[in-house]
Amino acid sequence: MNGTEKQPVNTKRISFEKMESVFYSILKREGLNEVKASTCARVFTENSVDGVYTHGVNRFPRFVQYLKEKHIVPEADPILKNTFGAVEQWDGQLGAGITNALFCTDRALEIARNNGIGCVALAHTHHWMRGGTYGWKAAKEGFAFICWTNTIANMPAWGAQDNRLGNNPLIFAMPYGDEAIILDMAISQFSFGKIELAKMQGEELPVAGGFDKHGNLSRDPVAILDSNLSLPVGYWKGAGLSLLLDIFAAILSGGLATRQISKEAAEINVSQVFIAIDLSKLHNASSIKQTLHDIIDDYKQSLALPGKSAIRFPGESVVKTRKENREKGIPVNEKVWEEILSL
Amino acid sequence: MNGTEKQPVNTKRISFEKMESVFYSILKREGLNEVKASTCARVFTENSVDGVYTHGVNRFPRFVQYLKEKHIVPEADPILKNTFGAVEQWDGQLGAGITNALFCTDRALEIARNNGIGCVALAHTHHWMRGGTYGWKAAKEGFAFICWTNTIANMPAWGAQDNRLGNNPLIFAMPYGDEAIILDMAISQFSFGKIELAKMQGEELPVAGGFDKHGNLSRDPVAILDSNLSLPVGYWKGAGLSLLLDIFAAILSGGLATRQISKEAAEINVSQVFIAIDLSKLHNASSIKQTLHDIIDDYKQSLALPGKSAIRFPGESVVKTRKENREKGIPVNEKVWEEILSL
Repeated sequence: MNGTEKQPVNTKRISFEKMESVFYSILKREGLNEVKASTCARVFTENSVDGVYTHGVNRFPRFVQYLKEKHIVPEADPILKNTFGAVEQWDGQLGAGITNALFCTDRALEIARNNGIGCVALAHTHHWMRGGTYGWKAAKEGFAFICWTNTIANMPAWGAQDNRLGNNPLIFAMPYGDEAIILDMAISQFSFGKIELAKMQGEELPVAGGFDKHGNLSRDPVAILDSNLSLPVGYWKGAGLSLLLDIFAAILSGGLATRQISKEAAEINVSQVFIAIDLSKLHNASSIKQTLHDIIDDYKQSLALPGKSAIRFPGESVVKTRKENREKGIPVNEKVWEEILSL
Repeated sequence: MNGTEKQPVNTKRISFEKMESVFYSILKREGLNEVKASTCARVFTENSVDGVYTHGVNRFPRFVQYLKEKHIVPEADPILKNTFGAVEQWDGQLGAGITNALFCTDRALEIARNNGIGCVALAHTHHWMRGGTYGWKAAKEGFAFICWTNTIANMPAWGAQDNRLGNNPLIFAMPYGDEAIILDMAISQFSFGKIELAKMQGEELPVAGGFDKHGNLSRDPVAILDSNLSLPVGYWKGAGLSLLLDIFAAILSGGLATRQISKEAAEINVSQVFIAIDLSKLHNASSIKQTLHDIIDDYKQSLALPGKSAIRFPGESVVKTRKENREKGIPVNEKVWEEILSL
C-alpha cells in the first residue's frame, strides 16, 4: 500500500547524490532553468529513494521525452486566473507538473496560514508524478492536506466495457511526529505497472484487478492488459469516486476533464486540486500529537491474521525504504539506468 | 450505487405527508422542540422518499429509542469552540445528528459565500443518518461540497482479524441542473444491512463483501455476519482511506476517533467534517453547467457490457425513486410501520 514498490531483477544501486546530479544535468540541458531543473531532479530522486520507482527513476526517460517533444513547456510558470477569499485558480500553462504542483501546494499552505484553510485549483498542468510528494511536503510543514489530480481515461464505468474514467490519484496527509501519515491512492485497484509486473513474473494478481474481454472480473494480468480494462477500487464505488474527483478537478480549476485529456497527444494538460488546513490554529492544536498517537497505537494493536505480517499505516513503509535506499543507494534496473545515461 | 435500496417484501405505501406527520408527532412527544422535530421528521421522510430506507423509515425506531435512552440530548444546540478565517470548530453537545449536521452544512455554505471555501468540523454529535442529505442541500444551493463522518469500528485493517476501522461515509456533491450529482459512499463494500438482506434472501453477495472466520475473503453473508468482518472498498486501499478519514475527522473537530466511539454505549459521539466551495466565485462560473453536461454526456456514452443496464451516475437513481415514491407513496415494511405507530 501507498507507494513502496519492488524493483524487478537486474538492479544496481545508485546513490541519491549521483542520481540527482545526473537528472539535473539532463534537465538543464533540455531547457529547464536552474531552479526548475534542480527541483525536478530532487523530486524524481526523492520519489525513487522513497521506493516509488514508477514515478521516479523509471519514469524519468518519459519526462525527458515530453520535454524533447515540446509537450512540456520548460519556461512556463503558473499564472493566477482568479482569487476569492481562500480560493485561488491557477493556469499551469503546460509547464512541468512537479514544479507547478509544488507551487500550488505552497500557495495552499500560505492561504491556510492566513485563512485556516486554503484551496488552490490548477488547470493546464502536467502529470505531477507522485501525489505523495505534495502530501509529504505539506505534512512536514504542519498542515493537514488533501489533493488529487485527474488523468486520462483508464478505467470503465461500472457495467461498461470502454474506459471513460481516470484513476485520479487522491492524497490525504497528516503530520505524524517528524514524519507523516500519507495515503497516496489511485482509484484503480492496481496500477498498470503492477499488472505488467505480474505478467512478467507469470503470476496472478492477489485479487481481481480488471476485466477480461468478455467483461468478467479477472485476476489474470494477461487478460486485463488485453482488454485494457482495469478495475476501480470497490467496483461501482470507486467508479463513482473517480467520476466525482474528475468533476471537481475540472470545475474547480476551469481546466480539462478526463474525457478531454484522453484526446490529447499524450497524458498532458490535467487538472488538480490542493486543500491545506493549518493545524496550529485549531482549539485542540496542543493535543493533536496525542490524538494521532492514540489512533495509530490502537490501529497497530490490530490482531494480524495468521501468516500476515504486522499491520502498517499508510506511509509507514516509505520511511523504512527511504532509510534503506539512502544508506545502500537506490535500486535501479540496469537497462533503465543505461537508458538515462544515454538520454 | 448511492443509496436507492429495495425494500423487502410485505410493504405498504405511506404518503410523504402522512409519514412526516407521524414522525413529527412522535419526535415532539419525545422532547424535541418544534423546529427540531419538524426538521428531523422531514429528513427521515426525505431519506425514505429517496429510497434510502435504512437511514430513513427503517432507522426511525432506533432514533426514538436513543431519545428515550437519553443518548441524544433533545434540547442541545451546537456551540462554537473556535473560529479562524474560513475554519470553524463546533461542539454538537450530543444533540440530534441531523439538526447538528444541517447546522454545520449551513455554516460551511455561509463561510464559503464570504471566503470562497468554508470548512466546519463538528465534534460530539450523533449519527447524521444519510450523508447525502447534506450533499443534496449544499448542491441545491449551488455549492460544491465534501463531507464525511467517522463511525464505530466495523471493518478490520488490511491483514487484521479484528475491527479497528469505521466505514466512515464520504460524500462528494456537485449541482447538476436542478438536481445534483451525489456520491454518498461508505468505505465498506456493503453495508451490514445489505449483507443481512442477502442472508435473508439466501443469496451470495455479487462480489466479496467480507471475511469468513478464517480470514478468507467471502461472498457468503452468513460467514461474514458470523465473523463480523466486513470488507473495505479496494481491500488495503479502503482500509487506508478509512483510517485517514477518521484521523481528519477527529483532529479537525477535536472530537472522538473511531477507537473511542467504539467504547461508547452506542454509536454516539461521532466527529464530522463539512467543506463547501462557492462555485459562483470561480472565473469559469458561467461555463460550469456546460462542463458538467459534457462530462456526464461522455460518461453516459459508455458502452454497456452485454446484459448490463444503462450506465448511471451517482445520485441519478435517487431522482427516479424520489419521483416514484412521491407519486405512489413510500414503501414501508408493514411490521416496521406498525412498530413506529406503537412507539
